[in-house]
Amino acid sequence: MASGLVLYGYWRSSAAYRVRIALNLKGLSYETRPVHLVRGGGEQHAPDYRALNPQGMVPCLLDGDRVITQSLAIMEYLDEMHPELETALLPVDARGRAQVRALVMMVTSDIHPLGNLRVLQQLESQFGADEAQRAEWSRHWIALGFQAIEAMLVDNAATGRYCHGETPSMADACLVPQVYNALRWKLPLDDYPTVWRIYQACNELEAFRQAAPEVQPDAPAAV
Amino acid sequence: MASGLVLYGYWRSSAAYRVRIALNLKGLSYETRPVHLVRGGGEQHAPDYRALNPQGMVPCLLDGDRVITQSLAIMEYLDEMHPELETALLPVDARGRAQVRALVMMVTSDIHPLGNLRVLQQLESQFGADEAQRAEWSRHWIALGFQAIEAMLVDNAATGRYCHGETPSMADACLVPQVYNALRWKLPLDDYPTVWRIYQACNELEAFRQAAPEVQPDAPAAV
Repeated sequence: MASGLVLYGYWRSSAAYRVRIALNLKGLSYETRPVHLVRGGGEQHAPDYRALNPQGMVPCLLDGDRVITQSLAIMEYLDEMHPELETALLPVDARGRAQVRALVMMVTSDIHPLGNLRVLQQLESQFGADEAQRAEWSRHWIALGFQAIEAMLVDNAATGRYCHGETPSMADACLVPQVYNALRWKLPLDDYPTVWRIYQACNELEAFRQAAPEVQPDAPAAV
Repeated sequence: MASGLVLYGYWRSSAAYRVRIALNLKGLSYETRPVHLVRGGGEQHAPDYRALNPQGMVPCLLDGDRVITQSLAIMEYLDEMHPELETALLPVDARGRAQVRALVMMVTSDIHPLGNLRVLQQLESQFGADEAQRAEWSRHWIALGFQAIEAMLVDNAATGRYCHGETPSMADACLVPQVYNALRWKLPLDDYPTVWRIYQACNELEAFRQAAPEVQPDAPAAV
């Protein structure tokens, strides 16, 4: 049985970015194996990658001979395998855990899937959506989602320097890549001051900075 | 502090359907409070509901004075609050838990969000998508997702009568509403024999039958 953690990802993939943050927050070293999502029609569709992950999506984590797919399943797995309190990605109380997981889903189910590359490609092929229309579509869903997240965070006594209290959690690991995405789409963020404040606080931490798309080995030299 | 579980949902909401299954599997009784997603522009947008859930979506669970939103967060919460092994919604081993959560996300992130009512409405308003085009769009994402889920299930020694082993889990609670949806969209299911077999096995259980959209108090008399 092989040992060590291997992450199949792509520098710009929001879901892989989440997992990089989680691995860094937990202080786990890992090997990066880039999967280029665009080149040659997408390396994620290649038979050898499909054999590993039939869904043909990133990220995918190898832990020895275990194959774990889906960013949220990977984060929960890492937290269960490495339950040390000081690097916990979830709070200890059930109510806090539910709050963090709700924030996670507000990103991973209600925003991110709608702006994914494959969805934008489908908008183009099925409805002839041009670049401006695809941008409008993406901004629409991010804005809706951020409105709700802002309301959740502002209203909640548990909100601290980070999404939940004074240590970063899974919610922050999901929120930061989504804000990064919003900036790419040039969505004005003035209406989401708490989201923006937390984004900045997270990016002061090495765990987040070293997970950023631009510093990944497969990122192009100048972005 | 009030006691008892209250579920805000809508008979046809896939996400609420998941939670009803989970509550039934855990043997928890609850009060249903219907939120009509279409009538009057959608009761989920009304100020009193927004005060409870700023996102304006269903489901939303009240546990005494706790408000829990997002179907997956609710299911995890129920499993943590009621950890009895015989009604566990997740397996005990980390690998199995990761597998179940990955299947969950394949539905909750990669299929369901793309066929949501609000997304179909946006396709109509932004691209003038007619009913046939919206149906094509919905079937496209369900088919892609079911291909991947079928491959995951067929390939896995842990697959049993249900998605994971011989007892239903969170994965089944997510898969069944998605198959229900696929049937509504008239997606042929011949290519997903394992998905179909598990759907039928689940629907032999009272927990699933009593969660079905048609038997909810807010369902129209004849569907």
